Amino acid sequence: MRTSAMDYDVVQAARVSTLGVEAAGSSGSTEGLINYLMRDRHGSPFEHNSMTFLVEAPMFVAREWMRHRVGWSYNEESARYRELKPVFYVPAEDRKLQQVGKPGAYRFESGTPLQYNVMRDVIRESYRHAWNAYQVMLRSGIAREVARSALPVGTYTSFFATCNARSLMHFLSLRTTSEAARFPSFPQREIEMAAEQMEEHFARHMPLTYAAYVKNGRVAP
Amino acid sequence: MRTSAMDYDVVQAARVSTLGVEAAGSSGSTEGLINYLMRDRHGSPFEHNSMTFLVEAPMFVAREWMRHRVGWSYNEESARYRELKPVFYVPAEDRKLQQVGKPGAYRFESGTPLQYNVMRDVIRESYRHAWNAYQVMLRSGIAREVARSALPVGTYTSFFATCNARSLMHFLSLRTTSEAARFPSFPQREIEMAAEQMEEHFARHMPLTYAAYVKNGRVAP
Amino acid sequence: MRTSAMDYDVVQAARVSTLGVEAAGSSGSTEGLINYLMRDRHGSPFEHNSMTFLVEAPMFVAREWMRHRVGWSYNEESARYRELKPVFYVPAEDRKLQQVGKPGAYRFESGTPLQYNVMRDVIRESYRHAWNAYQVMLRSGIAREVARSALPVGTYTSFFATCNARSLMHFLSLRTTSEAARFPSFPQREIEMAAEQMEEHFARHMPLTYAAYVKNGRVAP
Amino acid sequence: MRTSAMDYDVVQAARVSTLGVEAAGSSGSTEGLINYLMRDRHGSPFEHNSMTFLVEAPMFVAREWMRHRVGWSYNEESARYRELKPVFYVPAEDRKLQQVGKPGAYRFESGTPLQYNVMRDVIRESYRHAWNAYQVMLRSGIAREVARSALPVGTYTSFFATCNARSLMHFLSLRTTSEAARFPSFPQREIEMAAEQMEEHFARHMPLTYAAYVKNGRVAP
Repeated sequence: MRTSAMDYDVVQAARVSTLGVEAAGSSGSTEGLINYLMRDRHGSPFEHNSMTFLVEAPMFVAREWMRHRVGWSYNEESARYRELKPVFYVPAEDRKLQQVGKPGAYRFESGTPLQYNVMRDVIRESYRHAWNAYQVMLRSGIAREVARSALPVGTYTSFFATCNARSLMHFLSLRTTSEAARFPSFPQREIEMAAEQMEEHFARHMPLTYAAYVKNGRVAP
Repeated sequence: MRTSAMDYDVVQAARVSTLGVEAAGSSGSTEGLINYLMRDRHGSPFEHNSMTFLVEAPMFVAREWMRHRVGWSYNEESARYRELKPVFYVPAEDRKLQQVGKPGAYRFESGTPLQYNVMRDVIRESYRHAWNAYQVMLRSGIAREVARSALPVGTYTSFFATCNARSLMHFLSLRTTSEAARFPSFPQREIEMAAEQMEEHFARHMPLTYAAYVKNGRVAP
Repeated sequence: MRTSAMDYDVVQAARVSTLGVEAAGSSGSTEGLINYLMRDRHGSPFEHNSMTFLVEAPMFVAREWMRHRVGWSYNEESARYRELKPVFYVPAEDRKLQQVGKPGAYRFESGTPLQYNVMRDVIRESYRHAWNAYQVMLRSGIAREVARSALPVGTYTSFFATCNARSLMHFLSLRTTSEAARFPSFPQREIEMAAEQMEEHFARHMPLTYAAYVKNGRVAP
Repeated sequence: MRTSAMDYDVVQAARVSTLGVEAAGSSGSTEGLINYLMRDRHGSPFEHNSMTFLVEAPMFVAREWMRHRVGWSYNEESARYRELKPVFYVPAEDRKLQQVGKPGAYRFESGTPLQYNVMRDVIRESYRHAWNAYQVMLRSGIAREVARSALPVGTYTSFFATCNARSLMHFLSLRTTSEAARFPSFPQREIEMAAEQMEEHFARHMPLTYAAYVKNGRVAP
């Protein structure tokens, strides 16, 4: 597997710790070292890099996302500074609609076609009504920051999110599910869909780091 | 002015830095030392304490609040784990409804009685409609985390927020306005109302720290 | 096992998430809930508390300690503001002096009596010489911040360290060793000795949280 | 003044907040916008970037540096994993050696030639003695992590330090002095020398951000 520039930076940082600055440029098994760092939870070498994502997602996804504080920076579209756009989230037909089981062990099952149709019609009508209320208030001269109270959390927002490989792995470990994961996680499907796209990006740009992450049970070091 | 236990802890931490551990219990001018720390931006002595607030506020306030990452911990009511309550935010009559000026220098002016009436009626009707949609979906067996998409950001949520005096001062400096502040700030009135209550609590429990904060232009050290 | 006030706060914060604010005061299995939170890595409920330690330790221990950034606050004795005291670290006779094995799998074995004697004599003489150099410079009117360059990292320093249960568990998971730990850790013995004292304090003040920490493999949630 | 790629990223992040994602690529006054962000303390747009420095400095400088926790990542040479090199800090002749004034208002004045000579001779002899003790212990089979206790804080260490423009400005505001600064700061000269080099790098790579930082009194937004 090739060593990307970003994988290489992980190894450089680790070598300064263990071999000193004069060895920072030395060769050796990149793959083995990255795997060792991951396995023994040496997390700091994975912080000397930066990835910025431009995310477009419903507000309820942004709400969950921004609970990630450490190693994350955000700039989000402001509904105080600008009028939002009428873009809303309607679940696709394969979205599992029924939650079963008890707290701490919820799982989701497919809804019936009827359930899907009810959901889609009700949610669309609801968005339409809310948008209309928002527009009426704006046209009456009400400030954007007040009028937005009527907008649903299914409204799309957009934000820049910057993280490093360590904070990204922590995010992925909590916001994706996998049979192979060492710890269980229970992400809402909508944030998981975003997380899966980030995981692809991560795998492409840091292939050795990603491989070690998967091999060690998808736990952030 | 009396020295509270929490003010005293600030002074103890500072004395360990400058006089060493054997002086931690010594006397001296608490007020002068706290003022000096604030003025010269020695922020760390203000971190050895903890305040927990139980906040009930509209979701758009929670959204702004949780952008404060450093020195803040949160646990918020989950709309995935439970059905929310039909409690919504309707601005009071004294809420200034008109935003004037240009970006970076917005200010707010009172709306007309007609504007207030339109806003109140439209927003209430909008909340009622959204709540109904939420209920219809829940009764159709749709999962809470899906149905909540229809709920407006004016819906009340509740959360525990824990901070220390330093992170609280940073919050207050950005989320309250004052003629006497050294830096301008442009908080939305709704988060400012919550911040004002926290400021009262802060002033009561850490009177010397609070006095120094005000005296030095309401900037976090 | 009794529920301490601090354990109770964990449960309150978690209940706001899952049951809402009106259930914050409700009863139920505290022990079971804390164990569930720990097992499924719901870490935030463990942050709404605060513990402050006054630590006296050699500088090389302080150096390792202060690499813990998240959820930790520090105020340390300043060698710029005051003259330090001639207190130095000399390992006790049971300190294992020989490091064997290779990087990533080091272990320590007892030294011979001769090794111990050499170490003790050399290190004491070294401290004495360094202290003398420090004193000569100070008496010559050299600034404290310059003269301190000669002081060894075995010199004692003191600091206030404030953390919460979550950041403490993270610290303990990396700075103590245990057969029962889910992840290996390789702390230097000197910081582990401090960590063990903190662990006792933690176990006494948050018995249910501590029990769940141990039961779940000594991993921070 | 040209707009660098890194300055441009600041503006992009800010535009997502105020104008929405579709305006992220739009043109307009970069200089004016950056200045406005700095002046009104909109700090988050300055976080979507990353700078990594390889620092070689005495341990007492590393100690001060690593007190910067937020927005900083570190990997430092480990004296547990490797034998350190005999490289020590001896102040240059222009280092002001006399500290005058009282706590909170210290200033430094030049030492006499005699003072400089005493300092230089005493500190060199002290380093030589400490290094010898370290070597004797290592050759006796004593573990590196024990033997290092004898090494002075004037010993050089090396580390990777990664930050973003916001955390760097916070560092610079506390670790450099300037007549033009809005707040006073009292850095030790040795860390200031490193900070000045970082400031040059910052000015070169983010010229508009740097200009706005200086213009607004050298305060981090």
